[in-house]
Amino acid sequence: MPLGDVSARSKRFFMDDHIKQDLIDIVGESNYTDSLIDMVSYSYDASEHRGRPFCAVWGETAEQIVEIMKLANREKIPVIPRGAGTSLSGMTVPARGGIVLDTSRMNRIIKISIDDRLAVVQPGVIYADLERALAPYGFFFPPDPASGKVCTLGGNVATNAGGMKGAKYGTTRDYVLGLQVVLPDGRIMRTGSNAMKSVSGYDLTRLFVGSEGTLGTVTEITFKINPKPTAGSTAVATFNNLEDAGRAVSEIMHSGVIPSVLEILGRETISAINENTDLALPEVDAMLLAETDGYTREETEYQMQKIIDVFNGNHPMEVKKAGSEAEAAELWKARKSAYAVLARIKTHFVLEDVTVPMAKVPDLLKGIREIAGKYNILIATFGHAGDGNLHPQILYDGYDPDQVKRMEDAVADLFKLAIDLGGTLTGEHGIGLSKAPYMSLEHDATAMDVMRGIKRMFDPNNILNPGKMALDNEQ
Amino acid sequence: MPLGDVSARSKRFFMDDHIKQDLIDIVGESNYTDSLIDMVSYSYDASEHRGRPFCAVWGETAEQIVEIMKLANREKIPVIPRGAGTSLSGMTVPARGGIVLDTSRMNRIIKISIDDRLAVVQPGVIYADLERALAPYGFFFPPDPASGKVCTLGGNVATNAGGMKGAKYGTTRDYVLGLQVVLPDGRIMRTGSNAMKSVSGYDLTRLFVGSEGTLGTVTEITFKINPKPTAGSTAVATFNNLEDAGRAVSEIMHSGVIPSVLEILGRETISAINENTDLALPEVDAMLLAETDGYTREETEYQMQKIIDVFNGNHPMEVKKAGSEAEAAELWKARKSAYAVLARIKTHFVLEDVTVPMAKVPDLLKGIREIAGKYNILIATFGHAGDGNLHPQILYDGYDPDQVKRMEDAVADLFKLAIDLGGTLTGEHGIGLSKAPYMSLEHDATAMDVMRGIKRMFDPNNILNPGKMALDNEQ
Repeated sequence: MPLGDVSARSKRFFMDDHIKQDLIDIVGESNYTDSLIDMVSYSYDASEHRGRPFCAVWGETAEQIVEIMKLANREKIPVIPRGAGTSLSGMTVPARGGIVLDTSRMNRIIKISIDDRLAVVQPGVIYADLERALAPYGFFFPPDPASGKVCTLGGNVATNAGGMKGAKYGTTRDYVLGLQVVLPDGRIMRTGSNAMKSVSGYDLTRLFVGSEGTLGTVTEITFKINPKPTAGSTAVATFNNLEDAGRAVSEIMHSGVIPSVLEILGRETISAINENTDLALPEVDAMLLAETDGYTREETEYQMQKIIDVFNGNHPMEVKKAGSEAEAAELWKARKSAYAVLARIKTHFVLEDVTVPMAKVPDLLKGIREIAGKYNILIATFGHAGDGNLHPQILYDGYDPDQVKRMEDAVADLFKLAIDLGGTLTGEHGIGLSKAPYMSLEHDATAMDVMRGIKRMFDPNNILNPGKMALDNEQ
Repeated sequence: MPLGDVSARSKRFFMDDHIKQDLIDIVGESNYTDSLIDMVSYSYDASEHRGRPFCAVWGETAEQIVEIMKLANREKIPVIPRGAGTSLSGMTVPARGGIVLDTSRMNRIIKISIDDRLAVVQPGVIYADLERALAPYGFFFPPDPASGKVCTLGGNVATNAGGMKGAKYGTTRDYVLGLQVVLPDGRIMRTGSNAMKSVSGYDLTRLFVGSEGTLGTVTEITFKINPKPTAGSTAVATFNNLEDAGRAVSEIMHSGVIPSVLEILGRETISAINENTDLALPEVDAMLLAETDGYTREETEYQMQKIIDVFNGNHPMEVKKAGSEAEAAELWKARKSAYAVLARIKTHFVLEDVTVPMAKVPDLLKGIREIAGKYNILIATFGHAGDGNLHPQILYDGYDPDQVKRMEDAVADLFKLAIDLGGTLTGEHGIGLSKAPYMSLEHDATAMDVMRGIKRMFDPNNILNPGKMALDNEQ
């Protein structure tokens, strides 16, 4: 179900007073809450899902989390690990009540070692704080989620967060060298290594990356970091039909370069920006924003010229290249405003992140338009054309049951479309609650069985973030 | 045990005639062998381990492999998936007899889609054949194992193969988008997606990458591919003491660039090359070979100048920069000859691949020298300084029990050293049989338990490549 209070439809657990006391004994009075206002806050994340916990604790050490998990496992109470709660898929919503385990107070950058090209952090460190800490060394952590100013790195690991630089730099999983994890039964484990390369045993590290807090609670992360490029170039092209824009994306792949950014804005998004800002964009079918990076001007210009040649060969309305950083910032304005502008148009929205093989981006855009027409609902699309990851934002009035129904049907069609095009339900937001009912569209019965087997092996009592990722259905 | 016929010390399985007939019914007469000469060939890989199978079959389709696994699972006969048999850790040695499942005839490149930036291959495709097929498009598959001319891509996936470009481009796991796999019970499964990004469910793809053929047999692989850089620069520096070379490696990390290659040769390796070739290298403590790449000369020169500045600041004996491709090839000669030169010096050798955090490379080199002294055995080292992955090659006479014993003790010390330095047993060769006894040095009891649990879940009868990775010990 893409919407609604899941907990109301699920088995509920209630908590005895002695459990409350045990939790306070573990984390201390100041790290425990069951006040109504806190419980309401913890019922939400950035998705449209709701589910109220019984209490929340802030874990401050791995040892505390060990004790919390032992207690919860013994009492069979759900535990929902949570960072900043920026999940767009309901990953951090307490679908079945239980204890929210907030790791945001574990926010220490333990070590930055440029010699070893790594950073060791606690899970509650904010993405932007790590970026700030790395900047003086000329280093950065490439996967840059749009929520970077507030999201925690533990959440980034749980979601395998991506961002605009995915095509060139990959996603979080490509940078996690090792983890410390507390398992659902309270055992503590280290995975991976501080070495840049290791093939020692199964890749437990990446089993946890993207596991949405269903297998364990990450208490320490070792990231590989990269030297930051020192030069960049930015350009924008507008196209009066989707086919031209789509062909341009494909031809950029053939041009021999990978842009560090290749974003697309669809017509509905452009219109919404024009109606709600003073940007006065041309009302076209698609706008592409490209960035190249490197160490020298020659390198970024060489790459950008390849891209501009492709733009020019595909009937653009206009191609603009930034001549300065200020001009680049100007070109970025439309893209940067998209999410916020769209979020304000109706009372509610869902932001999807279907992802398809790149050559299918135009088909996906056309299909989205057809779905919007079929259900008479506004879907505005933007996203990462460079890795086939689009964000259709579906705008509706959540107080109108008919609109809610049409939104839900549109979302279901959207997922079917992405899978029919050879794609995936989610490029970077995760399955959570939103896409759990659609998992079998993408994964065959054996893969679903294997995933459920892994979940059962780690968490036989199904206490850690239960109800997510379709792991406990139809067993 | 680093050496010896493991199968002789393990439970043996014998095969009835009806099983032979069943296998022939599945794969056909021409894809079955139990001739002595074939069985002897299949007893080996590139490691020092030996173990004779009962028969070998060439699988030609996933459906045949499904039937083979169903049969083997029913009869509880070990199955050892095998590509080119280039494993340096005994990964493809039939430690407990059984059926070798040779996938080298599944050697079709199914699809190259530049638009989608991917290639789909069967597991028996040779690495170099994929490279050749990608070259006309200006693309390449970056992880480049030294055995690239003969190794199969299925083996690369099973080992998470690395190579000289790991520091800049990562290893095989960073490029596998999806797999088709036949599980030990004969079920067939797809993992991952044809999209560049996906966070849909657990990362089953990377659970198989590096799993050494113990969880399933890969029957199809989808790889992300990269546009190939069109410019490069090469330089070599020699140092009269290790500390200077080690400091140079660390300072290159601080310089803000990542060389595409940063190789090191130790004194013993240099001496061996001088004694066995006409290269006449300076007899120094360490030689560093660096390469930078990009699209433009300015970019590669900018990066190389940073590196040369670091070389010059650390008391080099000599720094040479290639002015042409011919000069670059000249500088590469020493590095390229290392393995083959060393392999010929004694009757036997083991090639290790311990890997440490980069700043520990000098400590590792010093420690290796101490171990060589302690056991009075020749250890010559070269490897990938840019990601901390060194290859100490231990040379000995395998017909002299005393030397064998000293080699084994030296290897044990070497593993302890790497772990003490915060490193890993293996950067790119895998655990196989060679490092199985040392797994617990690196992994805590919980991690070992989890790995064994995963193995049991996939393969309760322990029929798929049993005896590797310490997965069935001490359960």
